Parts: sequence; structure tokens; C-alpha cells
Amino acid sequence: MRLSLFTDYSLRVLMFAALKAEMFSLSEVAAAYDISRHHLVKVVNYLAKLGYLETRRGRGGGIVLGMKPEDIRIGMVVRRTEDTPFIVECFDAQHNTCPINGSCRLKGALAQAVNAFYETLDRQTLRDLVAGNEGTAMKQRLLKQP
Amino acid sequence: MRLSLFTDYSLRVLMFAALKAEMFSLSEVAAAYDISRHHLVKVVNYLAKLGYLETRRGRGGGIVLGMKPEDIRIGMVVRRTEDTPFIVECFDAQHNTCPINGSCRLKGALAQAVNAFYETLDRQTLRDLVAGNEGTAMKQRLLKQP
Repeated sequence: MRLSLFTDYSLRVLMFAALKAEMFSLSEVAAAYDISRHHLVKVVNYLAKLGYLETRRGRGGGIVLGMKPEDIRIGMVVRRTEDTPFIVECFDAQHNTCPINGSCRLKGALAQAVNAFYETLDRQTLRDLVAGNEGTAMKQRLLKQP
Repeated sequence: MRLSLFTDYSLRVLMFAALKAEMFSLSEVAAAYDISRHHLVKVVNYLAKLGYLETRRGRGGGIVLGMKPEDIRIGMVVRRTEDTPFIVECFDAQHNTCPINGSCRLKGALAQAVNAFYETLDRQTLRDLVAGNEGTAMKQRLLKQP
């Protein structure tokens, strides 16, 4: 069970934005995580489309959080960034080939487990993730703040 | 979030074994699900290695469940069959490159969510999956039983 790199990077960018709490550039967040800028362009555009980030063009432009960190539920972010929302084949009606689909109890069990996964993540907001001593330590590492 | 095909096929083979409740051949389960026999060889060998299946060679040989279906917890099966147990990079200490690892609250949140996923699945045994009307319907479809 693995989340996509796209989800991983999305969460990292959002944490960076919450820690920074002011406008930043794509190059800045790319350098902070040592990730290619190229990889983050799509991530930032998608998060902006969803309203989690705001991007402003031109001089004095950049990237900034588009919502309050306490209003960003982590489970919801992951639901939206995962490119493979189907845990197994039969969740994708168009591509199912399994002959027991429709009378399979495993499907229900998996759906419950996936819900439990997202509900657990929904108990955390972006604000929770950047709070406390860990938040301070992350700031030091990512923003090179003393 | 997607489970591997290996996990998917492992669960399907175990359900088949529980529904059949007697010795069967690799070709039989492959035909029932319309999956290539080739794909199932590794699955059956691995499940046999874990004790979930028993394989007997030679005349009168075949595959049979190696444990009682009520003793097979689905979460445990999935934990053992998933080839990518690391939900994001930093769960794999050998390959982590993320600079905030060690002071990142997201890691703890994800670990909790993964646990919730597996704990939910652990509430189901293989016996639960093949019980009731759905079990009867699956038998009809997979074993061509009236």
C-alpha cells in the first residue's frame, strides 16, 4: 500500500506553505526538500486549482496558502491527490474482470478499511501537522530559521 | 491508494479455497477467475509458505486451505502480501531523502491511518468473507455449483 509521489509532494508543499506563512517561490520549496522543480509544477498547479494554494504571477508574486491551515483536512487532501483511487480492480466498474463482483464480501471489507484510513487522516488538519516542537524543528530544517 | 495485484490475487485464491473446501488444482482457480495460471503460481507458493495453503504433489495432489478460515485474518494476509509496505518514502529508512524526517507529524498521522486500515480488515476473517448469501452466490459463480 503506497501513496503516489504526487500525494507525498502535495502534502510536503502544503506543510511548507503552512510553516512559511508568507509568499514563497517554487524554487524555494523545491530547494527545501531537494526535489526537482519540474516535479512540483504540476503539484502546485493542482493544489491551486483545488483552492489549497493561491498563486500570484509577476513581480512580487509567488505561492501562498489559499485556505486557513485549520480548515485543510489531511484525509480530504489525500483523497483528492491520489491518482489511483481504486484499491483493487473491482472498485473501477469500467475495468473490472472479476466474476464474483456484486456478491463479494471482500469488496465491502476493503471499502470499510479505506474509509477508516481516510477518516483517521481527517482527524488531522494542516495546522496540527505544523504545530508544536516538531513544527519548530521543521521550520529550522526547511526554512533555515534559527 | 492501491493494493498490489499480488494481494488481490492472494485474497481471491484464499476465498476460492474456502468456498471449495476440498482439494483443487491451480488450473481450476485460474479458470474460475479467468486469470493466467502463470500469475497464480507465485501467489499459491507464497501462501503455502505462509501456511495459509497446503500444496500436495503427485497423483491426488493439489491445493487446499492450510488453516481454518476463521483463523485467517484478512488484515494480516494483506500485511504479508503487500510488496510495498511503505506508504511514503520516509517509512523506508534506507531510501528516505526527506529532510524533515524525524520531526514530521505527517509520518505519525499516516502510520495511524495505515493501522486503522489494517485493523478494520482484521475484524474480518476468511470465514466471514465466504459466509451468507454472498458466499452461496460466489460458490455458484466460481464453482459452477447450482
